[in-house]
Formats: sequence, C-alpha cells, structure tokens
Amino acid sequence: MSEKLSVLPYKGTRDFYPEEMRLRNWFFGVIREVLEKSAFEEYGGPMLESLDLYAAKSGEELATKQTYNFTDRGDRRLAIRPEMTPTVARMVAGKMNELNFPLKWFSFPNMYRYEAPQRGRLREFWQLNVDVFGCDGFEADLEVVTSAIDLLLAFGADENMFRVHINNRRFFSDVIAAVTGKDAEGSRAISKVVDRRGKVPYDVYKKDLIALGLSEDEIAKLDSLYTMTVEEATSLCPESVGAQELLSLFSLLTKTGLAKYCVFDFGIVRGLDYYTGTVFEVFDLSPENNRAMFGGGRYDNLVGLFVKNAKVSGVGYGMGDVTLENFLRTHNLIPESLTAGVKVLVTRFPDAPYEAYLNLADALKKHGVTSSLYLGEKKFGKQLEYAVKENYTHVLIMGGDEYARGVVRLKNLATREEKEMPFVDALASLLS
Amino acid sequence: MSEKLSVLPYKGTRDFYPEEMRLRNWFFGVIREVLEKSAFEEYGGPMLESLDLYAAKSGEELATKQTYNFTDRGDRRLAIRPEMTPTVARMVAGKMNELNFPLKWFSFPNMYRYEAPQRGRLREFWQLNVDVFGCDGFEADLEVVTSAIDLLLAFGADENMFRVHINNRRFFSDVIAAVTGKDAEGSRAISKVVDRRGKVPYDVYKKDLIALGLSEDEIAKLDSLYTMTVEEATSLCPESVGAQELLSLFSLLTKTGLAKYCVFDFGIVRGLDYYTGTVFEVFDLSPENNRAMFGGGRYDNLVGLFVKNAKVSGVGYGMGDVTLENFLRTHNLIPESLTAGVKVLVTRFPDAPYEAYLNLADALKKHGVTSSLYLGEKKFGKQLEYAVKENYTHVLIMGGDEYARGVVRLKNLATREEKEMPFVDALASLLS
Repeated sequence: MSEKLSVLPYKGTRDFYPEEMRLRNWFFGVIREVLEKSAFEEYGGPMLESLDLYAAKSGEELATKQTYNFTDRGDRRLAIRPEMTPTVARMVAGKMNELNFPLKWFSFPNMYRYEAPQRGRLREFWQLNVDVFGCDGFEADLEVVTSAIDLLLAFGADENMFRVHINNRRFFSDVIAAVTGKDAEGSRAISKVVDRRGKVPYDVYKKDLIALGLSEDEIAKLDSLYTMTVEEATSLCPESVGAQELLSLFSLLTKTGLAKYCVFDFGIVRGLDYYTGTVFEVFDLSPENNRAMFGGGRYDNLVGLFVKNAKVSGVGYGMGDVTLENFLRTHNLIPESLTAGVKVLVTRFPDAPYEAYLNLADALKKHGVTSSLYLGEKKFGKQLEYAVKENYTHVLIMGGDEYARGVVRLKNLATREEKEMPFVDALASLLS
Repeated sequence: MSEKLSVLPYKGTRDFYPEEMRLRNWFFGVIREVLEKSAFEEYGGPMLESLDLYAAKSGEELATKQTYNFTDRGDRRLAIRPEMTPTVARMVAGKMNELNFPLKWFSFPNMYRYEAPQRGRLREFWQLNVDVFGCDGFEADLEVVTSAIDLLLAFGADENMFRVHINNRRFFSDVIAAVTGKDAEGSRAISKVVDRRGKVPYDVYKKDLIALGLSEDEIAKLDSLYTMTVEEATSLCPESVGAQELLSLFSLLTKTGLAKYCVFDFGIVRGLDYYTGTVFEVFDLSPENNRAMFGGGRYDNLVGLFVKNAKVSGVGYGMGDVTLENFLRTHNLIPESLTAGVKVLVTRFPDAPYEAYLNLADALKKHGVTSSLYLGEKKFGKQLEYAVKENYTHVLIMGGDEYARGVVRLKNLATREEKEMPFVDALASLLS
C-alpha cells in the first residue's frame, strides 16, 4: 500500500474528538438525569435488525430505500437500524408476559439513514427515544409531553425558546368527517396533505385538497381551524373521544403549570400512519431556526406486528442529537466549558528519580484527584503548554532541588499563582 | 402482513432490557470514572468506515471475511467497524498538527464481527479501547498497563483473580535471532506458532516449528524460556533494546507496587504484525475460566497508513464487554443490586383529584427525589406489586380521606413500615 488512505470519516458521519465527545456526553448526562429522576429506565438493542421489521412498518420500498441494508452469508436480509421504534416494539413483544406494565423506557442509540446529508440531517445520528407502554389513558400522554418539556428546561431553555404543538389524530379524523363527510381512509389521505402544509406553497396545498374532492368551502373551514384554540376547535365536535382527550390533556397541562409551553395546533398530524391519538411536535421559536425539532404521539398497536391478538399501547417521542445541538447553539445554551473540576498535571524533570513522580501521581489518584504524570521528557515550558491546552487546572512541580528538600510547587493555571509547600499541603489544597 | 415477525434479536446480538442495560451502564460508569481520574479523554467515531481501512491493516481477505461489508449506492466499499484501532488511527492522522501529544484516549464503542457466536464471542459487542499516542518511552507502556490493572481493581478484583503477562516483541525477535539465527521475517513466522502454543497440542506446536527449520535443540531452548523470570530471560540478550525496555518496565511496576499483578511471559507475542515493543495479555486466574481475557501493546506506525512520513507511536489495549462480564461473574464481582437510592411511586386512588397526585409527584421531582406517579387506574394492590417489581423503595399513599385531611402515608417497601404524616414531613424523610 503506497497510496495513503483518506483521513475523512464516511460521508454524513462524524468523528467525535474529545471536545465533541464531551458535548455528546453532556447531552446524554443531562437527559439521563432528567429521565431517571422521573423513573424512566434505559434499554438498548442491536444495531442490526431484520429488514422485515422496517418493511412491515413502513413498506418494503421505503424500508429498502432509506436504510443501509444487505444480505448476510446466511441469506438473512439485514438493515442498520434507521429508527428505534421497531426494535423496542420487538423487545416488548418478546417479553410481554414478564414485563411489568406500564413501562417507562428510554434509549439514546445511534442509527443510520440513507439520505443526502444536509443541515440537521446526517447519515449517522443519535436519537433519544422516550416511550410509555401499556397505559391507555391520558396520564401517559401527559407524562410523555411533560418529559419533553422537562428535558428542554433542564438544558436551560425557557418558554420564549420553544413551544409544544399538540393535536389528536382521533379528533382530526372526527373533524374531517364532520367537515367533509370523509371516512377514515379519506381522512388519512387529507392528513398527508395537512402534514406537508408548512413545507409547500398554499396553492399547492389547496390543489392537493381539491384533488381529494374537497370544496372551496370545506377548505376554508379547515383553514379556519389552524388558528383556533383548543376550546374553539373541540366545540365543533364536542362528542368526539379525541376532543375529550385533548381537553383533558390541556386541562392538566394548565394545572401543572406547563400550559405556557404548549399550544393546540390542528395542523399537527405527524406523517406516519401508526399514530392513533395525541400527536405533538416541539418547535424552536427562534426566528432563524423556526421549525419543528422533534415530535411523537400515541400509537396503539406496534406490538401486534409480533404477537397475535396482542395489544400494548404506546406513546412516546424521538429527538435527534443534531437537532438538539442546533437548538442549544441557537439559544446559546451550551456552557463555554464542559470540563469541570480540578485536574492536575505532575510535571517531570530529569534530576529527580522517575518513581518519585510516579509516587506523587499515585497519591493524587488514590485520593481521587483527577491527575496525570506528564508522559515523556519534554522541557518544562512544553509540559506547561501541554497542561494549558489539555484543560489542566493545576501543575505540580518538583525539580531535583525540591525533591531533595521534600517539597513541591503547586501552580494554579487560572490565577498563575505558584507556591512551594510539602506535598501533603498541596494535596489538601487540591482536595479543598 | 398476516405472518408475525420474530421477536428474537439477530443472531449473535443482544437485547438490553433495563436490567441488562443497568449492568452495561455500570461497566461504563466504573470504567469512565477510573480512566477520567487518570486524565484519559473519551472519543468516538462512526459505526461505518471504508473497508479499505481494515484491508490496509489486516489484508483484503481477512477484512472482507471477518466484517459485515457492503457497497453503498455511491459505490463506496463500507464495513461495520470490527475494531476501533483503524478509526482512531485515522482520527489522529486527520488532526495530527492540531492535537496535543501525548494523547491519552479511550472509547467504548459497539462493533460487529462476522463469526459463529460462542462463549465469550458474539457478533455485536462493546470494546473498551485505551491508548496513549505520541510517547515513545516506557512511561506510556507503564501508564497503559497500570490503567488495565486499575480498572480490574476498581471492579473489586484482587491479585488472586488475574495476572498481567508481559513480553516485548523487540526482545522476542532478538532472542529468536540469538537462538535460531533467523531474521525479522523468520521471527514473525515463529511468533505466529508461539502465539498458538496454548491453543494446540504440544506436538502440533513442535511440528510447526520444525517446519520453519528449527532444530530439536533450538526448540528446547525456546521451551526453557517460557518458565524464565524476566531477569533470567533478559540475561540471554542483555544488549537487546527490548530487554532494557522489559527491565525498566518491571522495575517501575515493582516500585509502584503493581508487580504482584504482573508476570513475565515469553509466550506472549500477540498475533498481529503491527506490535513493535511491549505486549501484554491479562489472564483470568480462576480454574474454570483460566485464559487470556484481553491484551494490547505498543504499535509504532498505524498513522503512517494515512499520512506520508508520519510517525506517531501508540500503545494501548482493548477489552470486550462479554469478556469483562464473564470475569466479573466468575469472581462474584457484580453487585446484587445495581439500582441505588430512594425511588418513590406515588400511588393513585379514584377519590382524590388527579391533579393532587400530579402535584405530589411534581414536588418530589422538583426536590430531586427519583419518583413517578403510577400511570393508570389499577387497584392499590396492583400498584404496590408494580412498585416492588420495578425496584421502588417507597410508595406515597393518599386516598380521598388523607387528601381531605391534608396528609399522606409513606410506606418503606424494605421495612414494610408505613406512617401517616404531612407531605412536607414525608419529603424531608425521603431527602434525609
């Protein structure tokens, strides 16, 4: 091999050098703390799954087009997971009789989608998945919406930065039926057009609805719904179960003080067919990034793909790491430094024995001080430069002279202060 | 789709239900703490890499045989990473002029190998990778061996449970040259036979050496080396640089008190061609699992695959999660319970308003108490059962009567003790 290999990561994927990794670990840490405080439990699944899992949920064509898929030597059709929902549905189905419902589960796996990389969309990304399984009531819907809000608040966001747009698929169908007389099938077709509404010109949206047989009058009625409050909208179909669910959810959001983060939005339907009740999308309110960041909703029978006559309801959402990072950067919510606490470099000189340095480093380690002995034999200036670049907060200095006198010098890299003292005093100062 | 999908994970991969995930998170947590205390920094890389990365290091045949590989729609040959070293070498090469050497890096990625699943070997596994880049001296070798020992000690292991077997590739070649007169090429061929020594009958080992041209006498000389101490062995080639490196390393291991975990072993050569100096393998000492668990060593020029004339030395090791788990289970080092701390279930009754329960749960959350409101409307007995199964430590009980009187009952699930008190007292008791 005389030709050199490329140093670039594969298209649409990222290298995480320690600086980027600290950020990813910070995301994970904040998320894990928030969710575990609310008694959500973490799970994980394999990176490779049977392609059939995605074909059953999204259709063969979409599944093969959007995933990295191939056949193994045992002729199994595999895909690198493009989402976590089929995996978690399979896991729930696999232990349906042992699991203790309702489950409050989360995961933060990496996944791959075959698409052209662009802002906010990469081929490899991490996606938080939060779900409640086995609770049919509005309590689970509230829990899931609350957890999404809690997460953003934990990252320092406030009500000026995001808004949770909420609707209900059952309510949507009932309204469509009332306005247009269409059945469930017709309502699904209309929902696809409504879902694209914000992404296409109004003319296109309108033409698509006309193509589905809607009159000018019906379209005008639909349009008026997009600006209605939840009370106004639900009064159009007061006996709809979906309307009752919406009113219960909003009433509880008000009582728990979360209503200020939420708004009813008849235009939220979520593209996927499997949603059956509450649906929501979280919008970034910043003018330069105003769009849906992530969303979710209630889906009632994914487990049924695996187990005959099984019915385990689910409600949840997924949030990508790239989306989260964009949001936090837009609102200046990423701390300047993610390295925290004391970190000590023991510098090294040729005129004291190496084991004396090893002993210092070992004593620091045994007392729980984050520390390292400088590896190598560079000049002191170089060692100091290394300490600064690598975010060390202190250096411990001991030349042959200090070694002979049984002292060290402790230098604080922030204040540039340097003081000679016995090692035990330096240790005490670092621990204080 | 009337035929149901399989609930099993893909062959050789695992589902991590919350219980298994807690174990994996515990592994990660202990490892991260140990390594970060010693100022190692975490990095991460993509799951997919160019297949050429592995072909350049291990040869086309091995690379395609042992990896999951395929061609994307842009005709790029890709592989799911079977190991981390090529990725990290690529990353170091990619920022060679910006990085601050010596680097102390670690990562704990998942990876895939195409092999028949068996004890200790799965198709998907996680592998800790610890490396020091850019330090040519024995200091880095010591640092890396020390970190491997520190890790096992942090998991509760002691010197009766494991032993680090250490050798040096340079020393090995020098001894082979002295005993057999073979050059570097011949030494490499012999090293492959020595590497398999523990895995094949002695006769096979001997026949393989004879096939390489060794005499009975030379084989006997080699055999005597396997039981020698480092002093005895190095005295055979005192002027070998490798011998000096071995003596320095063992002398420092003695001075830092780590010698009791280590032993010189001329039979350790590591199969891979790229090792150039110190090599080591960590053995489980339990009779039922006595074998090499993991290992590593010094490799001097992987970055050279990417950058012309570049030379960045590396020394490190990799440890798989399945191996670690087997070791910890064998020695009973996995704590009985990995769930820790107070976790409170707020139970629910139909005769108090739902928002009253939401308020209790919210107050607990705001005070940092891990807690959840029971989701659903099951009977109290069912809620209690749920709490026990889901590792809750307490339940908070408030029926209509308690609600009217402004009190709650706090039940400790370990002691079965239950007491009525105002909520503020219950909160104080949970926080104490």
